[in-house]
Amino acid sequence: MNTRFSEELCLTNETGRMLYHKYAEHLPIIDYHCHLQPKDICENRQFEDLGEMWLSGDHYKWRAMRTFGIEEKYITGTETSYHEKYLKFAEILPQLIGNPIYIWCALELKRFFGIDEPLSAGNAEEIYQKTKALIREKNITPRWCMEISNVELVSTTEDPVDDLHYHIAMNEDPDLKVRVITAFRPDKAMFAAKPGFGAYMEALGRAAQMPVTNFREMIEALESRLQYFQKITGTTVSDDGIPDFTWVDATEEEIEEIFAKAVRGEDITKLEDDQYRSAFLYEMGKLYCRNGYVMQLHIGTYLDANRKYVKLVGQSTGFDCADDTTRVQSVGELLNRLTLEDMLPKTILYCLDGTNTENYAILAAGFCEKATRAKVQLGAPWWFHDQIYGIDRQLRAASNLYPVSLSVGMLTDSRSFLSYPRHELYRRVLCNFLGELVERGEYFSGEEELAKTVQNICYYNVKNYFGF
Amino acid sequence: MNTRFSEELCLTNETGRMLYHKYAEHLPIIDYHCHLQPKDICENRQFEDLGEMWLSGDHYKWRAMRTFGIEEKYITGTETSYHEKYLKFAEILPQLIGNPIYIWCALELKRFFGIDEPLSAGNAEEIYQKTKALIREKNITPRWCMEISNVELVSTTEDPVDDLHYHIAMNEDPDLKVRVITAFRPDKAMFAAKPGFGAYMEALGRAAQMPVTNFREMIEALESRLQYFQKITGTTVSDDGIPDFTWVDATEEEIEEIFAKAVRGEDITKLEDDQYRSAFLYEMGKLYCRNGYVMQLHIGTYLDANRKYVKLVGQSTGFDCADDTTRVQSVGELLNRLTLEDMLPKTILYCLDGTNTENYAILAAGFCEKATRAKVQLGAPWWFHDQIYGIDRQLRAASNLYPVSLSVGMLTDSRSFLSYPRHELYRRVLCNFLGELVERGEYFSGEEELAKTVQNICYYNVKNYFGF
Amino acid sequence: MNTRFSEELCLTNETGRMLYHKYAEHLPIIDYHCHLQPKDICENRQFEDLGEMWLSGDHYKWRAMRTFGIEEKYITGTETSYHEKYLKFAEILPQLIGNPIYIWCALELKRFFGIDEPLSAGNAEEIYQKTKALIREKNITPRWCMEISNVELVSTTEDPVDDLHYHIAMNEDPDLKVRVITAFRPDKAMFAAKPGFGAYMEALGRAAQMPVTNFREMIEALESRLQYFQKITGTTVSDDGIPDFTWVDATEEEIEEIFAKAVRGEDITKLEDDQYRSAFLYEMGKLYCRNGYVMQLHIGTYLDANRKYVKLVGQSTGFDCADDTTRVQSVGELLNRLTLEDMLPKTILYCLDGTNTENYAILAAGFCEKATRAKVQLGAPWWFHDQIYGIDRQLRAASNLYPVSLSVGMLTDSRSFLSYPRHELYRRVLCNFLGELVERGEYFSGEEELAKTVQNICYYNVKNYFGF
Repeated sequence: MNTRFSEELCLTNETGRMLYHKYAEHLPIIDYHCHLQPKDICENRQFEDLGEMWLSGDHYKWRAMRTFGIEEKYITGTETSYHEKYLKFAEILPQLIGNPIYIWCALELKRFFGIDEPLSAGNAEEIYQKTKALIREKNITPRWCMEISNVELVSTTEDPVDDLHYHIAMNEDPDLKVRVITAFRPDKAMFAAKPGFGAYMEALGRAAQMPVTNFREMIEALESRLQYFQKITGTTVSDDGIPDFTWVDATEEEIEEIFAKAVRGEDITKLEDDQYRSAFLYEMGKLYCRNGYVMQLHIGTYLDANRKYVKLVGQSTGFDCADDTTRVQSVGELLNRLTLEDMLPKTILYCLDGTNTENYAILAAGFCEKATRAKVQLGAPWWFHDQIYGIDRQLRAASNLYPVSLSVGMLTDSRSFLSYPRHELYRRVLCNFLGELVERGEYFSGEEELAKTVQNICYYNVKNYFGF
Repeated sequence: MNTRFSEELCLTNETGRMLYHKYAEHLPIIDYHCHLQPKDICENRQFEDLGEMWLSGDHYKWRAMRTFGIEEKYITGTETSYHEKYLKFAEILPQLIGNPIYIWCALELKRFFGIDEPLSAGNAEEIYQKTKALIREKNITPRWCMEISNVELVSTTEDPVDDLHYHIAMNEDPDLKVRVITAFRPDKAMFAAKPGFGAYMEALGRAAQMPVTNFREMIEALESRLQYFQKITGTTVSDDGIPDFTWVDATEEEIEEIFAKAVRGEDITKLEDDQYRSAFLYEMGKLYCRNGYVMQLHIGTYLDANRKYVKLVGQSTGFDCADDTTRVQSVGELLNRLTLEDMLPKTILYCLDGTNTENYAILAAGFCEKATRAKVQLGAPWWFHDQIYGIDRQLRAASNLYPVSLSVGMLTDSRSFLSYPRHELYRRVLCNFLGELVERGEYFSGEEELAKTVQNICYYNVKNYFGF
Repeated sequence: MNTRFSEELCLTNETGRMLYHKYAEHLPIIDYHCHLQPKDICENRQFEDLGEMWLSGDHYKWRAMRTFGIEEKYITGTETSYHEKYLKFAEILPQLIGNPIYIWCALELKRFFGIDEPLSAGNAEEIYQKTKALIREKNITPRWCMEISNVELVSTTEDPVDDLHYHIAMNEDPDLKVRVITAFRPDKAMFAAKPGFGAYMEALGRAAQMPVTNFREMIEALESRLQYFQKITGTTVSDDGIPDFTWVDATEEEIEEIFAKAVRGEDITKLEDDQYRSAFLYEMGKLYCRNGYVMQLHIGTYLDANRKYVKLVGQSTGFDCADDTTRVQSVGELLNRLTLEDMLPKTILYCLDGTNTENYAILAAGFCEKATRAKVQLGAPWWFHDQIYGIDRQLRAASNLYPVSLSVGMLTDSRSFLSYPRHELYRRVLCNFLGELVERGEYFSGEEELAKTVQNICYYNVKNYFGF
């Protein structure tokens, strides 16, 4: 039984191994959606230890630690050190068989630290000291991680009111070898029912240097910010969420009334919320189309499911879940309305209910049209589904419904600078899948076509689609 | 790496290979549901070229072409020739790895034209000329395709008002070696909310030679037509759609009011539409039961999702999608009501949300009863799911929930005379699945039982179930 | 082709085979949820023949027989003998390829009767006589079945009003080598809309020796019974169903009004039913938490789908189906409310819509917290999904979302004393899955960790979690 990291990970057939090692392995990485802090890249943050690198922001690991009943102080608490947290985490790692965290950690230890033995309680301290020394010796920083991973571009995610000063600084930094852009994420303008909407509108007005007293003005202000984002970073990337959403029509007057209520902090009903978000997403779609952005729709989040812990630990710390209420027809109606106005931007659909991916692949194909390759397409398996099984399932199922050769491939969606091996994992699973098709006789167009497909999915499609 | 079509396609285990080649390969085909034009069979249409055969009516290929951003004129436009369209299509074909279109085209080139090399931009013109010559030389026509495919029976799909004159003519044609019947598809009577309902009722009245001024009379007229369909073609096949459907009860008076509104062209609410369709499907179920028809329910279409293109290009041209709103309980209530009246006909459930197939397999078993084998059963993977992955998944998942040995097997549901290899593909995947069960020790009743199962699913079950 | 039962069933890789035979095969069985009759264990029921053992209570087999159109008299009828029923069943068994019934029967024939040839119409009578003789010779009784299966504990399922006299008798029986406890299943108090609610409340009052005239008192009475169950059997197991459920808030007054209507036998609307069940499940959750019970939530049943046959044959006889209306957010809100009060008990989520399991795995992880391993966890594949494919799919999919190493593993949920090989089947599929991960390089922490994982999932986790 193998007890070392294997370079043949996930590669179970000869054609797949050939494709991976010959065509995929060495391609640069374009990470067009992540949640890295621009400050950390700009200032090239120093890490104390692997504990900090692994556990300072990764809600995947936090969730896993909670399932083992580990006390919160060893997870997100401030009273314990990253060293202690790391040791607690190392203890459970061998029990994470079948979980992406296991193989992500294995890949990260191998690729960044050259360690190919399995981490466990037994060698945790030794590996801690070894990696700590390496972090110091090699000066392992955000930029080092990106360079060693052959990263060409990353896109962070910023709020429309952000002044992008770190991005401005990075633009002027001749030592930065990776291009850093940002996605435009207008969440706070979309969730009219959340507290602080009024204050946010004021902030948006200040950022856009215009009054924002109604829905119409808000959209104008957002367009101004969206153009600013583009001016500063050259971005073409949006990031929009669709949790628990039903498309509902409303008149302009109704939308303005809902907006006014939201600004005053009054309660918004579910129906009003759906009306507002329908109108909002429709208007944002038009802005994206007009300004050459790609609309990224993230469908089916069940945010803040555990409200006690959200209050204790904060949002996005592991208490979000996946929802099954948003219907395909609601997303379809958004695409339909924009199409009817000839204002549908390039759009990527991400579905957090991984079991429903096929219906979105079908939907995407129904809205493709002339002059754009893969105008509407399915995104990479997202969040909970960004793992070997999820990737493999989506490839197997959705390639039948939408040409996988057109896919813009993988992104990390991560908060960690060590997550680039997720691209490696995707490439391995992809090549293995394609290789299987060949070996079962389901594809016989030869190596040249296969190479093109692999290279396009892993690198060229994303470049062309976003215009990077 | 293999660069020729392989006769071992999809057969990855020895038992599966044996079962396919020994018991499945040579069985006749009964294609009990398709969308071929009876005119084309009756007049034995002449085809100009492979472009016409492939691209004159196949919305699968059209959708795929649109995802590549190909202009509509090369897809459905009248200003370009089928030759030009074929060349555009051939260009993208090598990029359709993992998609059923790739393997369908490969099978069709092999089985009808003896070509086993992969089609690509490079050899497209050469294969075009070769197939064009073959079409002329061998006089490749609808009837030729059916005969060479060992087709015993096909069922087209006609509207209740159709006078079936092509079917009548075919009945009298001694040269026609394939039996041609038709499914009864009362779509236009079911969609009360669609424009033209009133005019359709007049047409139905004329066809049935009786006044159709209310719901009751409409059902009578439909029964008269259904009996006419049976008299002319001996059919026992229906075709009913259930898009976005919720079972809702209504009184007879309410149904008559909705009917009257629909005839007058007034707006029908979603609730009224559901009430009407509940009543309609219930009454149709009784008609089917009384007249020995098999009810085929097609669940979960999301028709005309992209309304701009439906207006430009037409219905059923690639802008339909799959819906996830119809609930199992709504279909279940239809079955329950008919069962309570002892009027449930034989019923086949097709589910376009391929991920929800299991719940329908479970439902089907709950309504089986004495004296009929597989009274209610799951249909073959339908439309978007009629592909290797979809077939394999349904076999793996649903056989656990409903005896697959009772299945009436495959149908093409196609608009093309070249689609019979879809039966071959199904048989390959089926044999491979059964072979795997044997090789993993999950079945050990021996070759004779396996042979019977294969032959029943591929041929005898459908004969017995429909009474062909 | 193998025509004998194989000891390598489902084991397709070397590591999996090693893990199963070395670590899983010989572990005792803790069957923490089943529907055995305590009377049968207490009195050590005598069985007439294999017909009785297989067909007197097994709705899986009944459903399968109905799909073949077998008359009800050979299924549940009283006018035919078990011998006749057995012969009818044996006839269809070879046609159940791919169905769990086939492999369950094979395992049961092998493990309890030493028969490794496939049962069919041809040898049915011979095997009937052989097993009948063995039942007599070896005195094959409930206790014999449990002992030979290495069963350590079983939990039956009783209604709160049950006086547990069989359990009391078993406690005092020195010959009983298996520990027998019972789950607390308050179904009748949860379904306020069902007939007989008022009479049930009277029975509950008598059992709890207190008046039950309102919701508050009912909860008190249930707590008293729940403590009685615990006092008599030491149980920590509940059993709650969530069919077609939407979380809806209501005031105490509203709940009391609904309760009063239900007691008077008045109609309860769907909204009231949801309000009542929301309140009921919330209160039960608190009771379970306070009394150290594990809450087992069974989500998504579609009970009594075929009402004609439920009336003819009875409830739980094969006419229940799976429902797709209960949303993850409704179950999530129950967990959230209990968490907000710090009153969430240990909870196991079972989802009858097998395709939706992943969303529940994600939900479970969002409610885990300090001091309890796997506080909320996914249950074993349930009912229709308790089969090789269902188990394998859940392992593959859900291990990515929730550490499978924490799982409390398998249960039979069965009405038959011959069902213990379902644990064997689960262990085989589990070991095969883990072995595959190792062989693909996805896990390399070595045999000791793997052994611990296997042993925990198959035996130790359930002991620790329930405190058995």
